Amino acid sequence: MTVDPEPFTRLSREVLVANQWHRYCRDRYVLADRTEGEYFYVDMPGSVTVIPRFADGSTALCRVHRYLLGADFWEFPTGGVQPDQDPLDIAKLELREEAGLTAAQWRPVGRFAPYKGVANEVCRVFAAEDLQQVEQDLEPSEAITVHRMGWAEAKQTLIHQPVADGHSLAALQLYDAGAGQA
Amino acid sequence: MTVDPEPFTRLSREVLVANQWHRYCRDRYVLADRTEGEYFYVDMPGSVTVIPRFADGSTALCRVHRYLLGADFWEFPTGGVQPDQDPLDIAKLELREEAGLTAAQWRPVGRFAPYKGVANEVCRVFAAEDLQQVEQDLEPSEAITVHRMGWAEAKQTLIHQPVADGHSLAALQLYDAGAGQA
Repeated sequence: MTVDPEPFTRLSREVLVANQWHRYCRDRYVLADRTEGEYFYVDMPGSVTVIPRFADGSTALCRVHRYLLGADFWEFPTGGVQPDQDPLDIAKLELREEAGLTAAQWRPVGRFAPYKGVANEVCRVFAAEDLQQVEQDLEPSEAITVHRMGWAEAKQTLIHQPVADGHSLAALQLYDAGAGQA
Repeated sequence: MTVDPEPFTRLSREVLVANQWHRYCRDRYVLADRTEGEYFYVDMPGSVTVIPRFADGSTALCRVHRYLLGADFWEFPTGGVQPDQDPLDIAKLELREEAGLTAAQWRPVGRFAPYKGVANEVCRVFAAEDLQQVEQDLEPSEAITVHRMGWAEAKQTLIHQPVADGHSLAALQLYDAGAGQA
């Protein structure tokens, strides 16, 4: 993926805080000019974002309360992937639990790094088709409602929020550009 | 922005690690059902992403080495904003330092939360027009080259990377949808 020589050489890695969601770490590095530095970051291996499409072209958006922003967001279903988990399995799980949907057809759409300066997370995007409605299955801390709407309306809803959800916008951009690899 | 009652009530906030870029914090909260929980997150008030457009419609992308992903990314110029800084001032600074460009025309394009589950950051997107080339002014830890290219080529370049940059894709989505507020 890169042809340039690696400009950073890692000297050490330290996990400062570990919790059930991610690890917060500090690396020490040295540059080619011998400058040494520190890098503080979230070690969060992966995530998935799912774009559901019904046979009539409509989709389902989640309305999710985001504690850190103190507000409700319109989003595609999303979730974190741990190193020992398969991204597609988690995509299926999140679609069922958060959106109350199962899909017979899954298609990889692309990958992006949502927060490349502070987290090593790579988000994999999947399109889910041939959908069936089932029951939502939320955690107590999840306040999520599901809203089926036409595709054009969903795009407008995702874009024209006071603050949009970066994962959903990036996923939409990859989706509209045609199928890729997740 | 929300009409629902706040589902989380904060009990405490603790800064676990502070550095020059952000703070890593732990909040304790209680839910309406009296469940208590912890939330670990990056306190990073803001950022900016700049979309430069030359008079001929072309743009400039940065090729940036991202330490956490171990790879080079195609990106629009971007940078962090501290609480006492004006986002537009930082947008001007980043465009000049990273891309070696100044702009006579600035337009707010929209806002998004790049990492809503783990960081409270809101990224403001600006379009920069009426451009002049100046000198890049990089930090020793920044390995950035600038590449002017046509708009359609730039979009393809941003989208069809092995791993795309989430900030750039989200900014592009907001930009293509028409002007908004930053």
